[in-house]
Formats: sequence, C-alpha cells, structure tokens
Amino acid sequence: MLTQQISPLNKEVGQQVADYIDTLTKPKGSLGRLEELAVQLAEMTGQPFPEVTPPGVIVFTADHGIAKEGVSAFPQEVTVQMVSNLVHGGAAINVFSRQIGAISKVVDVGVASEVKEAEVLNRKIRYGTGNFSKELAMTRAEAQQALEVGYSEAVDLIEKGIKCLIVGEVGIGNTTTSSAILASITQCDPASIVGHGTGITSEQLKYKAEVIERAIAFHQPNAEDGLDILSKVGGLEIAAMTGAMMAAAEHQIPILLDGFICSVAACVAKLMEPLSADYMILSHHSVEPGHVQAIEYLQKQPLLQLNMRLGEGTGAAVAFPILQSATLMVKEMATFTSANVSNIE
Amino acid sequence: MLTQQISPLNKEVGQQVADYIDTLTKPKGSLGRLEELAVQLAEMTGQPFPEVTPPGVIVFTADHGIAKEGVSAFPQEVTVQMVSNLVHGGAAINVFSRQIGAISKVVDVGVASEVKEAEVLNRKIRYGTGNFSKELAMTRAEAQQALEVGYSEAVDLIEKGIKCLIVGEVGIGNTTTSSAILASITQCDPASIVGHGTGITSEQLKYKAEVIERAIAFHQPNAEDGLDILSKVGGLEIAAMTGAMMAAAEHQIPILLDGFICSVAACVAKLMEPLSADYMILSHHSVEPGHVQAIEYLQKQPLLQLNMRLGEGTGAAVAFPILQSATLMVKEMATFTSANVSNIE
Repeated sequence: MLTQQISPLNKEVGQQVADYIDTLTKPKGSLGRLEELAVQLAEMTGQPFPEVTPPGVIVFTADHGIAKEGVSAFPQEVTVQMVSNLVHGGAAINVFSRQIGAISKVVDVGVASEVKEAEVLNRKIRYGTGNFSKELAMTRAEAQQALEVGYSEAVDLIEKGIKCLIVGEVGIGNTTTSSAILASITQCDPASIVGHGTGITSEQLKYKAEVIERAIAFHQPNAEDGLDILSKVGGLEIAAMTGAMMAAAEHQIPILLDGFICSVAACVAKLMEPLSADYMILSHHSVEPGHVQAIEYLQKQPLLQLNMRLGEGTGAAVAFPILQSATLMVKEMATFTSANVSNIE
Repeated sequence: MLTQQISPLNKEVGQQVADYIDTLTKPKGSLGRLEELAVQLAEMTGQPFPEVTPPGVIVFTADHGIAKEGVSAFPQEVTVQMVSNLVHGGAAINVFSRQIGAISKVVDVGVASEVKEAEVLNRKIRYGTGNFSKELAMTRAEAQQALEVGYSEAVDLIEKGIKCLIVGEVGIGNTTTSSAILASITQCDPASIVGHGTGITSEQLKYKAEVIERAIAFHQPNAEDGLDILSKVGGLEIAAMTGAMMAAAEHQIPILLDGFICSVAACVAKLMEPLSADYMILSHHSVEPGHVQAIEYLQKQPLLQLNMRLGEGTGAAVAFPILQSATLMVKEMATFTSANVSNIE
C-alpha cells in the first residue's frame, strides 16, 4: 500500500504514437489536442493503442468541522442527504457516469452522521473532521488512513478493469478546506483564492477568507509536508482522493481531474509524489477562483471551460468522451497508405 | 422545399426548463453552460425534455476550380480519394460518428471525377466549380440546386429520426472558397482571414489572399445576396451545407456547427434566413484564422477550443457528448424535493 513506485512516462511509446498519428488520413496536427492527448495516454499507459474505457468514478464523501463556522450556503446535513441521492442515481455525477459507462462507487470516509444506505462503502475514519479554526482537522495517523482508503478503493476498481480514474467528492464545507490546503501549499493569500462555493454571499466570502487565514496562522502547516497539511486543515474525502490518485499513477492509469477540490487533492498528490502529476489530465477550468492557483501548481491545461463549479467529479465525466475520441482516433483511423490517399510528401 | 418558414425560438418552454433546472440537486447555476445549453435546446425544439440522440452526420463533398491556382497543400485528386476513405470508415469523421452513434451519409454534390463507391449518394450538380479567379464558380441556378440538395438530404435524415444535425465537408481548396465567401459577406480584408488550410507555406498563404482579393474585385459579389455570393465565389458542398442547415432550422432540429468551413456555410444561412442562426450551436473554435470573423458574424460562443482544424464535421462530433450531457441532466437528475435534500431557501 502506498508503495510509492511511480514509473516515469514512457516517452518511447509516446514518440511511436506521435509518428503513427502523422500517417493518419488528415493534415498533420489538424486534430490538435486530441493528438496530444493520444500521445500523453500512450506515455502514461505504455500502450501504443491506449484505452480509457471503462472509466471508474469514485465519489468520496465526508463532513467538515469548519462548516460550523458558517462558511457554506448549505447546512451540514446536506452531505448525508446527497449521499442518499448519490446511491439512488439522482445526482449529477450519476447521470454523467451512466452516460460514459463508468464503473462507480460511493465511499463514506467520514460523514458526520450514520449513512443508512448499504450501497455506500463504509470506510468511515471519524465522524467529520475537527473544526480547524481551533483544533486539528484530524490526526496525522487519520490523514494517512484516509489516503490509504482512497488508495485501496482505487486499486479495487483498477483490478475490476477500469482504464481511467475519475474521483469526485461530496462534503459540505469542502471548498473552504480546499482553499486552506491550497494556501498552505502555495503560500498564497487565502483572500485571492476563496470563492462562493455552493452559493455564499460576499460578506460570508470575506469571512471565509479570514477563517482560513487565522487557521493557517494558528496551525502553521508545513508547506513541504502533505500529511501535515491534511492533518491540520485537510478533509477526509480530499485525502482519500489524493490516495486514489497515487494508486492510479502507480498502476499507470490516467487520472482525469475534475475542478477545484479535485485539483487541490491532486496538488497534495504532486507535493507528496511529484511523478503522480504526470498521470493527470485536467478536464475543465472551474469558475471557483482558487482553481487558477491549483492549475498553475499542477501545470495543466484544462480541456473544457464551461463555467461549471459543481464538483462530484462532474466536469471530468463530461470531458471524458474527449479522451475517448483521442484513443479511437489512433485505433480506428486509416493511414494514407492503407486508404490509398495521396499525402503531401 | 426551402419553404423558409422558420419559427422563432420557444422562449416559454425555455423559461420552464430554466426554472426546472433550478430545482435540481445542485447549487444554482453550478453546471454553467450545460444549463444554458439545456435551455437553448428546449427553446429550439419546443420540448421541455429535449433530445439530441441520435444525431445525424452528413458529409457533403465537391471539388473547387480555384484549387488549380495552387492554393492547397494537397492535390485535387485527394477529394475523391478521401470520399473512398469516408465510405470505408477510415476518416476521422467516421470514427467520431461511430463514437456518438450517428446516422451518417456521404453526398457527392460536385466531385470533379467519377465517384465509384455505390454508398456515396450521387447528387452531383457539376464536376467541380469553375475557377473563380476568372469565371463564375457556378451559375445562380446551380447554387440554388446545391442548396436544395442539402435541404432534401437533411430532411431525409430528419424523417429517419435524427434529433441534432452535424454537417461536414470534404473538398480540396475549400478553405480558399470559404475565405472568399466570408470576405464577401463581412467585407473584411481577405489577408486577415486566410489560413494555412491543410498545410500551405507562408508564401502560398500570401498568394491565397491575393487570389481571393482579385476574385472579389473581379466578381463584385453582392454582400446582401447569398445566392450571388455562392454563385460567384462559392462551393457546391458549402451551398449544400447551407441548405441542410435551413432544413434543420425549419424542422426545429438543433444544428451543431463544426469549424471554419461549416461556420461560413452557417453565415450564408444566416444571411439568407436570419432566424436559422437561432438553431445553431457552435461546437469548437478552429485554429483556422478566419473562424474568428465567422464566429463574430454568427454571434456564437464555441463549446470547445482544442486547436482542431480538420473539418469533415469532426469538431462537432467530438463536442456532441456535451449536448447529450445537457439533455441527460434535465431528464435524469433528481430535484431537491424528490431526493429529500435541503435547499438553501
């Protein structure tokens, strides 16, 4: 578990695919980012004809003690209500997961109340994090445990045959947590990255930034130590997402990142295991303002910019067919030679 | 045929859908453009739960006399070779059409040589257009005929049950033709819109702009008269695309526009029938420089920007799953009430 054996990208297979793409019946480079994606997927998987189907979608869910500070538009009980919605198939991520034929699961890493639905995997570490404005979010051991929950749940889906990993989250208050983590990693001003989340007012927004600023001053998280940050200002579902990404990277499975919260989990993965970031593709640019900072840290270019900010993994699921197009291009297009089409040379 | 009875958008159903979307289990507005798309599709189709599947893909193909001026990187015989590739399923648009489950066809409106494959619909109007640097591309009657070919082929697919129309093209030289049409409509400087097409050099690019400039000075196309423009500097497949779009708009079928050439055909449709543009959604922003001018004329915002410039309808097919996500969101998501989730109010 967390063996931390991430292989570097297979540049050789990538080059083979790049050369092959230039023989397909289209002007060179005319499929733009689809061509780049096909090469990246080849580098990640080591396969000249990479596959991304079926994708796997894991929604990790947990509560946040910081929600008690009034930083969210929705009350905390919405987390457990949304978990129920998730297992009944009515949440946005359910709709898009069905559309892309994903193998899905919902994992409770730390919802603050009992989850009744048997379909939810009970991997609860504690009943919500502590209110990090005055106490640790979780112990260092709990943070490690949450990483391992994510890791093992991802390994389970990989063993079931998924070829691409999407991780989503549900947890009232988790944009506040994510902003605190990101500010701890990048040392930026919290006021520059907080956003309206599910829909708070401008006054609440100012307060949200202050809460984070004070928490960071209080805990002094070590910017070089992912576990320290997670323990002091983190979230259980965010730590689990990070662990799941590490598992995917270790198994050479491409990770399709969602928006802000997912990208922050990705930043933690990159901080702890820099090579893991080589296995990440960014699905979309969220309107949550902190996403800009996370994208910069990850050095990724989003595929979509559709003004989405829902989370749950929805942006990644909506962008997934683009990855599929890239793989089908390589697999199914004719070459100039096979199709008897005159090439420029 | 070309009855020119395009209904205005159904704003009432659009408003109903917008209100309904606000009851779905997600923060208001958090699915961004997916929500806007769902409303637009409702306005176009008049349906509160609009459908876009199955989509239809028609690839119109024809040759361009202007190719004799050396404005393309590929020789003219590539058109007929690519038609053969299209019916054997090896072209990029075939791959993406299969991915989205499209009902497809290939229509010869004016390839310069005989097309042998029986699967290609023979609606040839003439063997390529005239070289518009010194003669008419086609007569006004031929332009009208090409519009009607497009119109009737689209009606045929609509009768077969398609719920969204994608039109693509194959025709060596057609970025030159498209630039000439666009410059005629918008009165802009051809040098500001010509691009490298399938891959010409910078020297050829300069020459391409000069050819267009001289042709416009020679023919003086009437900027208010779509048929005049098509006849003087147009293309047979482009006129057919325009006709197909008019059919879709008349039947309240959403049109998913591809890149530069398709958008120019859309500009002609908008010029001839302004209401037709209400039924268009722009799939992507092509790297072909003239696309900016066409987008401005159409007043559309692209869904994707993936640096594509292949044509054939590929950008539209790759973007299609996003429309599907928008319709599935409305159809399948739970409401706050049905899911027993606490809303903000």
